[in-house]
This record gives sequence, structure tokens and C-alpha cells, in this order.
Amino acid sequence: MDIAVLGTGRVGSAVGVRWAQQGHRIFYGAKDPHSPETQDLVERSGPNASVSGVREAAAACQVILLAIPWAVTREVLDSLGPLEGKILIDCINPLTPDLKGLEMGFTTSAAEQIAEWAPAAVVVKAFNTVGDAAMADPLFSGQSATMFYCGDDEPSKAIVRQLTEDLGLQPVDAGPLVNARQLEPLAALYVYLAIFGGWGGDCAFKIIQR
Amino acid sequence: MDIAVLGTGRVGSAVGVRWAQQGHRIFYGAKDPHSPETQDLVERSGPNASVSGVREAAAACQVILLAIPWAVTREVLDSLGPLEGKILIDCINPLTPDLKGLEMGFTTSAAEQIAEWAPAAVVVKAFNTVGDAAMADPLFSGQSATMFYCGDDEPSKAIVRQLTEDLGLQPVDAGPLVNARQLEPLAALYVYLAIFGGWGGDCAFKIIQR
Repeated sequence: MDIAVLGTGRVGSAVGVRWAQQGHRIFYGAKDPHSPETQDLVERSGPNASVSGVREAAAACQVILLAIPWAVTREVLDSLGPLEGKILIDCINPLTPDLKGLEMGFTTSAAEQIAEWAPAAVVVKAFNTVGDAAMADPLFSGQSATMFYCGDDEPSKAIVRQLTEDLGLQPVDAGPLVNARQLEPLAALYVYLAIFGGWGGDCAFKIIQR
Repeated sequence: MDIAVLGTGRVGSAVGVRWAQQGHRIFYGAKDPHSPETQDLVERSGPNASVSGVREAAAACQVILLAIPWAVTREVLDSLGPLEGKILIDCINPLTPDLKGLEMGFTTSAAEQIAEWAPAAVVVKAFNTVGDAAMADPLFSGQSATMFYCGDDEPSKAIVRQLTEDLGLQPVDAGPLVNARQLEPLAALYVYLAIFGGWGGDCAFKIIQR
């Protein structure tokens, strides 16, 4: 699959490298495609990866992963070309600058806001409740971390589900896009535990059953 | 420990029976203490349990578990006597009647609302993100379910932590009471998965580590 990975930070690089290694073609979209960090990322990703500006990367793909900071999300979306029918996978958490809470919630969510800003696209919330360590290596003492996703379009969700399995994470359908109002607070809980609660980033949520 | 368990529904009865079996004295507070269901619960709980109205149960104990529906919470709190210094363990989720979301969030939470309604008491949010099946039997394929709690008073949190361990659940400190804004949406996610997502009630969240 051709996937535009917009954002080459910890999330974008963690999933980009692994998807590229598995044969997906990764089109990184970077603010500065020529920076040494970005070039290093492309090299680590192997022959299936390339990098350009965000507009070019998004234009090349049907599936676009948004792994950019919340603060620049609208600006980046507005800078992209037509998004008709494209799948926007939203990994973004609208964290407050002190990382102790969210900038929105309950009556809306970043995912719903993105869907409003990009009405021609289909938004699936995903990859926001696990840290980049879990994306790079999904196994914790032999158990795969759970990755919740939600959205309103089943075919798009099936693609996200497959991309999640490709990373070795356990995909769990968390319902319609409005349930991003639950998944974003879950990310805030993860951030609290990792940064302030003494857990560190190398932990993850898992659904357990009998 | 003497614990008032207000509410004899699924949550109150699940924790009440087990705590009583472990030697805690359980004072159930019921709307109708003489109903056959309540009498049966007391019998199942053994010699450490008794039942009365909610006011009498709360008056007898320093630790009070609120396992009542959100809709009657204020009314019940107002019906209790003085709560100076008592610990209110809030298991309540302010679910909408269709169980698909919450009645409040982001700028507040049920826990914070309860703290406002009962300013003389100390509120700890707990036992709201696991189902009653996990409270009755915390082991899932050999792993104990995680039980998040949050609050602003460390000694009270230590008591809740111990009561959680007494149930065999893994207690995880989720920070200050304001983080109920994350724990209540997590409960809504659980309810979604259990009722609408095909998981059933017999699953639980777990934090996994390397």
C-alpha cells in the first residue's frame, strides 16, 4: 500500500520504518525534507521510502497518516491538495502544552475537528493510545499491545485494522468517530502515566479476556 | 476496615461480598434493606456484613463506597449525615441513558462534581473502569486486571490502593482527582466495547510492560 506519513517525529518514524520494511511504500511528508534527520529516516526505512513536502506526499497516496503536532494540524491540512475520498488516519492528541490534559473533549475531539476541516476525506482515529515504543516493538512480555481505532467508514477502518496488524499490534474497533472522545482521554491517561506517573513510555494498554 | 457500601447493585455486591470474605466489615446501604435481594446479598456476604439505609451505613464508617446510579447521586449524598473527613470512593460513571457516552466531561467529571457536593469529604475515583465481573474475579488467563484510581489525598489513595489489592486487582495511581476526566471516558470505552463492540462484560484493561 502507498501511505503518506505526514510528520517525521517519533510516531511517524516508528510506523514508517516498520511499514516500509514490510513492503508498503512510504511517502514521508516533512517540513524540511532535506534535513539530516529526515534523510537518515529515509535511509533507515529502506528502498520503499521516500520523502518530500507534505503536499506532495499526500498527493501521491490514498492513505494519509497524520502524525503531526495538534498545533499545526489545521495549517497542514489546508496546505494539502484535494483530499476527495482519501483516508486520513489521525494519530493526533490535542494535549495541553503542560501535557497534563487535553485542549478539547466531551463535546468534540481532535478527530471530529479534523473531519470538519477536511470534509472530503474519511477520518479514522488510530495510533494515538500507544507510545512510539509500542509502535516500534508491539510485544510486551509476549503480549501485543492493544491499539484502539474508531471511525464511521467500515472499509477505511478495515484498512487501518490491517495496517495495525502489520505492526504486530492488536487492533480493537472502538466504534464510531465520535468515540474519539474516549480515545483521546485514554491517550492523556497514557501520557500522564508515562511522564508523571513513573511508568515511562515503555508500557501500553491491553484488553485482557478469560 | 469498616466500609459502607452504598448501593447493592452489581458493583456494590461484587466488591462487598469479597471484602466481607476477607475480613472487612461491610455496612451495605440499600434503598430497601428488607428486599429479598438485599437479604440474600447479606447472607452471601457472611457474618461480616449487615445492611441498613444509606444514612445509617455511612454514619457507621470512615470509608464509603458510592456504587449508586449517577442520577441519584446528589440526592443520596444530601441524605447522608455529616461527612467530615470521610473517604468517598466514587465508582460512578455519568453515562448517558443510551450508554453510548457521558453526561459530562472535559471541564469536569462526576468525581469532581461529587467533591463539590460533599466538600467535607475526601473523594477518590476508583472501581469505575472495570466491570463487575472483574471485581468478582480479577484474573484473566492468570493476569490481574488493572484498576486505575485518582484523587488528591495520598493517605486516602493508599487506603483505596489496599482495598484494590484485597480484591486481587492491580492498582494503578492515575494522579490527581482532575484525572477522573480521563478515567470516566475510559469507563465509557469499556461500556462501548462490552455492550456494543461484541466483547461482553468479561474483559478488562491491563497495563503491560516489557
